[in-house]
Amino acid sequence: MIIAAFTDADGPGLGVVEGDTLAVISRGDPGHALLDLIEAGNSAAIKIGAQVENAPRVALSAVRLDPPVVSRDRALICVGKNYHAHAKEFFGSGFDSTAQDEIPEEPVVFAKLGSSLVGQGDVINASLDPTGTVDYEGELAVIIGKRAHKVAKADAYSAVFGYTICNDVTSRYLQKRHNQWLIGKSLDSFCPLGPWIVTADDIGDITGHELVTRVNGEERQRAMIRDLIFDIPTLIETLSATMTLNPGDVIVTGTPAGVGIGQDPPVYLQPGDRVSVTISGIGTLTNPVA
Amino acid sequence: MIIAAFTDADGPGLGVVEGDTLAVISRGDPGHALLDLIEAGNSAAIKIGAQVENAPRVALSAVRLDPPVVSRDRALICVGKNYHAHAKEFFGSGFDSTAQDEIPEEPVVFAKLGSSLVGQGDVINASLDPTGTVDYEGELAVIIGKRAHKVAKADAYSAVFGYTICNDVTSRYLQKRHNQWLIGKSLDSFCPLGPWIVTADDIGDITGHELVTRVNGEERQRAMIRDLIFDIPTLIETLSATMTLNPGDVIVTGTPAGVGIGQDPPVYLQPGDRVSVTISGIGTLTNPVA
Repeated sequence: MIIAAFTDADGPGLGVVEGDTLAVISRGDPGHALLDLIEAGNSAAIKIGAQVENAPRVALSAVRLDPPVVSRDRALICVGKNYHAHAKEFFGSGFDSTAQDEIPEEPVVFAKLGSSLVGQGDVINASLDPTGTVDYEGELAVIIGKRAHKVAKADAYSAVFGYTICNDVTSRYLQKRHNQWLIGKSLDSFCPLGPWIVTADDIGDITGHELVTRVNGEERQRAMIRDLIFDIPTLIETLSATMTLNPGDVIVTGTPAGVGIGQDPPVYLQPGDRVSVTISGIGTLTNPVA
Repeated sequence: MIIAAFTDADGPGLGVVEGDTLAVISRGDPGHALLDLIEAGNSAAIKIGAQVENAPRVALSAVRLDPPVVSRDRALICVGKNYHAHAKEFFGSGFDSTAQDEIPEEPVVFAKLGSSLVGQGDVINASLDPTGTVDYEGELAVIIGKRAHKVAKADAYSAVFGYTICNDVTSRYLQKRHNQWLIGKSLDSFCPLGPWIVTADDIGDITGHELVTRVNGEERQRAMIRDLIFDIPTLIETLSATMTLNPGDVIVTGTPAGVGIGQDPPVYLQPGDRVSVTISGIGTLTNPVA
């Protein structure tokens, strides 16, 4: 099942995507309604609980898709240097302020503030970065479905509700200059998320899916999710060992090789560019740069 | 004016502290009510708007004080290595995974997840850290009062609503091992915040106030707020240059010298310990360790 937060002429809402229409299952702030669906757990339960059959339909083309989150306050939990080839390109770029090892021995985890969230088609405001070093990072995002505390790898997928796509937009110079990455990662509009959540029961084995990032139609990143250094079960085990994950938490799993600073010379995003991140089975998240 | 989030036999609420009583100005989740007070702006406006005069009173001793935040979802924005002597002790401790410079040239900024928040008297669950390297960090926390985007230093204090106290409890080994600090800083219960917010108009010049941290009554940290490397106006200018700060955002300003790993050999918190952080003009935040 595909679940989308949206806004149209009647205001915000939450819906289920069916082809080119959206079954509107709730109006108003989609956060609480999304949390209810997440807690329902799977497509069948959602279909019945949210009365999808009887919901009014709107055309998908007539809505704006908003970031599919239970709270725009909540920070996203993000993983750095989590594909081998990217870890090497980042280590070698001169921008890796925290590098002790080319390939990290343990997950490198940081936050993007909720205040940086935008949705499908929203502008990435590159002009906010005075250093002109704005870079894309196409990533798979995992939506947590259940309260998770000390969850073992073997049980980790049972804590996953679904998946979406994140563009972990980064100011490379700010990322380096402030040493810890929060400032370089949390500029307003630097967290495109969407276009929607696909439930885990629809996706099946996420590791068999492929991520492709394009800038102005030109392919820049391509990787299989199975190539993550620290896979989804390892991330959930590691995080939940010391912190409770809650329904609706978003774990952004890391970006593959092919970012702008991996090129020689580095290529940064410019106003007028258009970045799209596609993950098979989920969709494409596209954002213009201004 | 002193504003406290609390829970008593009648559930959660928000109140104004007057001596040893609490004027209850709202019942239910205190977040929205606190945001309303923050947006009212100052003690006089709050007093009238919240009808403090006519509010029912409860004894302060009969309530539990909760973390005074507008949302338990929202991450706290934290600053590292922001007092000279502490920056040196941390750099020299072997735990500074990100160290390029002893004294940072720009603010080092990271997040603590809202899920780690606890209030006055709540237990710091040190047993969650399998590495046994739990350390305290007494810090001043700034509560943002107005939406702040590109605020200059000269105007920064006008964006401050008030102040509270944070114990930025840290697992030193996890902080180092994961390179970025989120995991080492966001263990459940590792973010005591409180006991309450004192409004800026009551505090006057915050730089003239003093912070003292004690463990089991023994003094470990003592510093003046004026000794911050990056002062409050600099932090607000730096952060708001690229990200919008919102009413209720919490900026935790950094800890002075005297943490456990600054001692030789390092001394970590143990079950049965009791940590208190006092800031003159605000109060004392005390938490037992279990």
